[in-house]
Amino acid sequence: MSDLEGKYAKFLEESLKIQRICSVDALLGWDMETQMPEKGASARADVSGQIAALVHDMATGAAYTDALEAVLAEVDALDVDRATIVRDAKEELEKTRKFDPSFVKELATLTSNAHGVWAAAKDSNDLASFLPCLTRIVAMKRQEAAIIGFAASPYDALLDEYDPGLTTASVERTLGELSSFLAPFVDRILASPHTVDARLARFALPVDRQRDVNVALSRELGFDLLGGCFGEAPHPFMTRIHPGDVRIATRYVQDDALNAVFSTLHETGHAFYEQGLPEAHYGTSGGEAASFGLHESQSRLWENLIGRSLPFWKWCAPFLKRHQAFPADLSAEDVWRSLNAVARTPIRTDADEVTYNLHICPRFEIERALIEGTLEVADVRDAWHDGMKKHLGIVPKNDTEGVLQDSHWAAGYFGYFPSYAIGNIYAAQLGEAMRRTLPGLDTMLAQGLFTLPLGWLRGAVHRHGGTLEADEIVRRATGSGLSAQPFMRYIESKYTAIYKL
Amino acid sequence: MSDLEGKYAKFLEESLKIQRICSVDALLGWDMETQMPEKGASARADVSGQIAALVHDMATGAAYTDALEAVLAEVDALDVDRATIVRDAKEELEKTRKFDPSFVKELATLTSNAHGVWAAAKDSNDLASFLPCLTRIVAMKRQEAAIIGFAASPYDALLDEYDPGLTTASVERTLGELSSFLAPFVDRILASPHTVDARLARFALPVDRQRDVNVALSRELGFDLLGGCFGEAPHPFMTRIHPGDVRIATRYVQDDALNAVFSTLHETGHAFYEQGLPEAHYGTSGGEAASFGLHESQSRLWENLIGRSLPFWKWCAPFLKRHQAFPADLSAEDVWRSLNAVARTPIRTDADEVTYNLHICPRFEIERALIEGTLEVADVRDAWHDGMKKHLGIVPKNDTEGVLQDSHWAAGYFGYFPSYAIGNIYAAQLGEAMRRTLPGLDTMLAQGLFTLPLGWLRGAVHRHGGTLEADEIVRRATGSGLSAQPFMRYIESKYTAIYKL
Repeated sequence: MSDLEGKYAKFLEESLKIQRICSVDALLGWDMETQMPEKGASARADVSGQIAALVHDMATGAAYTDALEAVLAEVDALDVDRATIVRDAKEELEKTRKFDPSFVKELATLTSNAHGVWAAAKDSNDLASFLPCLTRIVAMKRQEAAIIGFAASPYDALLDEYDPGLTTASVERTLGELSSFLAPFVDRILASPHTVDARLARFALPVDRQRDVNVALSRELGFDLLGGCFGEAPHPFMTRIHPGDVRIATRYVQDDALNAVFSTLHETGHAFYEQGLPEAHYGTSGGEAASFGLHESQSRLWENLIGRSLPFWKWCAPFLKRHQAFPADLSAEDVWRSLNAVARTPIRTDADEVTYNLHICPRFEIERALIEGTLEVADVRDAWHDGMKKHLGIVPKNDTEGVLQDSHWAAGYFGYFPSYAIGNIYAAQLGEAMRRTLPGLDTMLAQGLFTLPLGWLRGAVHRHGGTLEADEIVRRATGSGLSAQPFMRYIESKYTAIYKL
Repeated sequence: MSDLEGKYAKFLEESLKIQRICSVDALLGWDMETQMPEKGASARADVSGQIAALVHDMATGAAYTDALEAVLAEVDALDVDRATIVRDAKEELEKTRKFDPSFVKELATLTSNAHGVWAAAKDSNDLASFLPCLTRIVAMKRQEAAIIGFAASPYDALLDEYDPGLTTASVERTLGELSSFLAPFVDRILASPHTVDARLARFALPVDRQRDVNVALSRELGFDLLGGCFGEAPHPFMTRIHPGDVRIATRYVQDDALNAVFSTLHETGHAFYEQGLPEAHYGTSGGEAASFGLHESQSRLWENLIGRSLPFWKWCAPFLKRHQAFPADLSAEDVWRSLNAVARTPIRTDADEVTYNLHICPRFEIERALIEGTLEVADVRDAWHDGMKKHLGIVPKNDTEGVLQDSHWAAGYFGYFPSYAIGNIYAAQLGEAMRRTLPGLDTMLAQGLFTLPLGWLRGAVHRHGGTLEADEIVRRATGSGLSAQPFMRYIESKYTAIYKL
């Protein structure tokens, strides 16, 4: 092994040591959502806080930083992927060093505890009981932004955590572009004399049957169950513990069997990305997803572009029927139409493709205002109502369906919501490019042949891991960086047909 | 806060920091057995190894040892419980300091990996594939014994890990006493013209139904489900992650519904102990069980003394019937007799109360010989067959049912098996004493009133945690230290009646 190879190997080894503790943190998170009993919450919050502080200590400790500096001194002699990884690591280290370990531990403990407070507040529609928590979290996130530093808005510093390169101004512009197309388009749809009945796609199925069929569906799509497993949680999510261990948590609703099917499609899309990351780079940024927005594009592509398409249901309806999990008298075309019914509803995760991004707009405006200090936490319900009225024309009937619906703020995830919109946009860009390469895509979907679309994503997106920026990955795959045009074309064409506009 | 109080608080705080990482290790173990996908095993072994090394570093690091030495200097001024805790901590530290971190990490990684190798070897009846692993583990355990140090036998050093105070000589004596009573008693039972049909108690039940009814049964007994949860694993077990989070893993066998019921009774007994430990001492030895033998006494008391008694089945049969989980035509008396059928069978965990301890004898002899170096790993199958023939009069038909049946050796648990026999003995001692205090015990059991027996155990055993030695806890509760007499009385009286001897 050459001297530089040896130095890189040492850097990788030290990175892996930190990554292993991060994998513990991922397991703690998985467990907290899927299994941990109620009375374990307080001791668990202490464990989470200590693990976060430990990661911080290791990431700023001599063993790691010396190894990094040694390889950094010769970074130009590395191949391009590893040079990127080393430079990213240096940048990350500079950022981590700005934080005092006590701050990191306090925020981890605070958000770990806040989860239970939020969940109880949501259950009992008691916003007041969550506000003191939220006040502390907002204060710490503002402090975090100040510590990281920013040019224009403190919210920029937080956005950068999820989608590097995004700014408050660029998100404002992109959401504005979407909104000025979507808002009048929703009006046109809802004014159409042709209506779509959402209730057709709603049918009951025993939860035990749902468990089996969702795992089977995910396996059919291509999820590797030797390297992953399923669980249940109040809010569906996906997590990678480490290579060979990617997990999907779904929620089963007895009275609405397809609810879980769409969670499964969504989370399987996320899981594909994680199962396709370059394992050789595991432990470094090169072995991670390029951005949250790109991650979300993978889930939305499988959930919406594929999962809400007619060709897919030509395969999926008979598949579910074979598993005794679909009404015998419901046709693929009918369920497909029904699944694409558009409505102004209060809950983001229940929203259709057309109104979904309009749910992001008020969240972005509120987050930004909280972090910029132009909105007080005490006024967050009023801001929610105003925002929903402005963008969606509706007001939630209570806080459970309103400002308390999402867990993100309790977790400290300020700056995350815009990634959902970016994900929808990237998904449409990638979907167009995929179809250019695979003109027979619809036939494949109708036959349940998912290996080629998955293979295309593996090659175009997953295999790069974090060795390229998300926008560069999308540019190489589609010929263009972030562009809302394909998404708007997709929405317009699909819903013009469905609603006969 | 006085100076000494402050020093103790600091010691407790530093202990808790170590304990939190141990709780991560417990969660990794739980997850490995209940959920982790196959391909995650290798990365997980690295995580386990690193966590073990971290615990070792913390337990020998300045932050903890300085805090311990500070309070140790004034230990005589502490109350008796805390003085014991501090002295135990010092003793433990002396032991930990003998180990090199690389040894600890290597053993943890080795045993984490060995689990999969053992499981595959057991599945395919391929002992040869496990032997290289076992050879390395035995070598490391012999090394461990040498590092700890011992007077008479290296096996003494390992026994002490599980049941402090036990020695190779005392185990040999106790097992000898049991064996010379049990072996001829089994002969008498099997020679009785009165037979008991084990098949009566074997009936099928869908696994989904079993899941519900076992959780309900555990709750009825008194398991706190707000501070615990259930899972599934190939081998039933119980683990405490931390206070408020005690977990039971059961295995459901479709064709034999009561198999899981007895696992649930057993693990619930363990869980009661963990849920009853003094939380104020959490993080120190005072907040832990006093010994593995005493722990096992709690599980065996609920599984056997209560769970295989006629009064219990007078309550349990109707309880299960109410849950549609018991044959309508099977009486309490019939199922009780059937559940107490005695037979010479190859699998320890399937053994009845009479033959069970005879399964411990060959394991003890083999372990001891491996650790003392008088038996080669290559000869372990022959030793197994010889031992089973000598103590039980049978030879297993393959290694899956023979030397590969238990996971203990793959996990490095040499010295653990004798605790099972100690547990059976303690359980009988505690059972006799409980009955003296609660003369109406049988009536309570027949009515499903478990609060008083559980309350008695809480007061007599659980609340002491590790502030007293196991033998002292038993002595205070029963008037005598370890004594096999009550167990032999219990077996003789019960089975003389069942088999009309």
